[in-house]
Amino acid sequence: MINKESLTHHISQQFNAELEDVRSHLLAMGGLVEKQVNDAVNALIDADSGLAQQVREIDDQINQMERNIDEECLRILARRQPAASDLRLIISISKSVIDLERIGDEASKIARRAIQLCEEGESPRGYVEVRHIGNQVRKMVQEALDAFARFDADLALSVAQYDKTVDREYKTALRELVTYMMEDPRAISRVLNVIWALRSLERIGDHARNIAELVIYLVRGTDVRHIGLTRMKEEVQGTAGKADKAE
Amino acid sequence: MINKESLTHHISQQFNAELEDVRSHLLAMGGLVEKQVNDAVNALIDADSGLAQQVREIDDQINQMERNIDEECLRILARRQPAASDLRLIISISKSVIDLERIGDEASKIARRAIQLCEEGESPRGYVEVRHIGNQVRKMVQEALDAFARFDADLALSVAQYDKTVDREYKTALRELVTYMMEDPRAISRVLNVIWALRSLERIGDHARNIAELVIYLVRGTDVRHIGLTRMKEEVQGTAGKADKAE
Repeated sequence: MINKESLTHHISQQFNAELEDVRSHLLAMGGLVEKQVNDAVNALIDADSGLAQQVREIDDQINQMERNIDEECLRILARRQPAASDLRLIISISKSVIDLERIGDEASKIARRAIQLCEEGESPRGYVEVRHIGNQVRKMVQEALDAFARFDADLALSVAQYDKTVDREYKTALRELVTYMMEDPRAISRVLNVIWALRSLERIGDHARNIAELVIYLVRGTDVRHIGLTRMKEEVQGTAGKADKAE
Repeated sequence: MINKESLTHHISQQFNAELEDVRSHLLAMGGLVEKQVNDAVNALIDADSGLAQQVREIDDQINQMERNIDEECLRILARRQPAASDLRLIISISKSVIDLERIGDEASKIARRAIQLCEEGESPRGYVEVRHIGNQVRKMVQEALDAFARFDADLALSVAQYDKTVDREYKTALRELVTYMMEDPRAISRVLNVIWALRSLERIGDHARNIAELVIYLVRGTDVRHIGLTRMKEEVQGTAGKADKAE
């Protein structure tokens, strides 16, 4: 298990500073991405095409941040040849930036839907769901980043667990909107804009879950992707394998 | 510029074998993923729920392949501390598996739509488009992997360029299907299954493009993400920067 302390005891002060730098750059990128999700959802709900345009423009900054962090990781890998938990930190960061960049992309897509709704006119349904699921996934992104900042595997686990709730609510919202479209076919195109936005929110939840899984890998050293929530919980709580022995 | 030759001149035969192994594992995973895309599209078009079920089951194998390749990359990073083109190879592989795994996910989603269409009854429209765009993105995946196998930056560039065509045809197909839904609202739910499948195909094209960009990074050493197709072409053809000088 690693903690902040173990990161501060490198022989090379310089190496230490580089690791701290790249980690803080990841968290800064995460903060901006989280704001983008928030702004995109608000732009859609408030029919604010100016805000939506701003989200689309800022997406380039996020792409640039990804490139910079990638270069930092590569430089550290090439020059410092990190091992053990330092290597896991670099791997986790270089994978997390991919998910953060994709979250940024989805926020940008939501902003595009917001602009289309401004042009075509409001959807008669779906705003409550966008607000609700939007809040849920924004919180997931925020907590995944907090978990990264604090090396908190328990918080990461709760983020991964929460993704199931989001998926369920997304499906319910979708079913209702499809029913509505059948009743009022003239609204199909406008309702579809909301459906695409909800789809993007659901994907953002998936990416937040991916980041949470990377935090667990970073802290516990175990790859918990695709193993199911029960086994993930056992890994995080350190009870993995005990069930087998009890059998 | 690297080629197969440069990979065969390592001091350590063992290291050399490890690099070749992980590369061939990536290509094997790619082959299976490509087959999954093909099978998923066929299952949807032929209303073959047995084939669709098989695609869903094989997805676990792909996830396992991702884990194994990831572990191999990590082992090589930790023990061999690769530099220069070897490091780029490992980075490109460890990022490409993420895209391959997501392509597998999208194939699995298409299979789920195929199963739903078997249950709800055929969609009255959209199969021609699924066949057509399905062929296009399958070819993109195949050529991105060929480019990886042969370190062929020119082929990779043509894959990245082709993504624009797919995006355009996807949008056209979508517009037609939305119009159809307005004319026949009772078909909305069935047509939406086809729309989701098309969306997955479009995403598969994006992932193939990502892999192509990683091949260019591997061969040319330049990160060509988010720089636009014109600059990408200049980087691949070695004319980057010349335009600036001419000004």
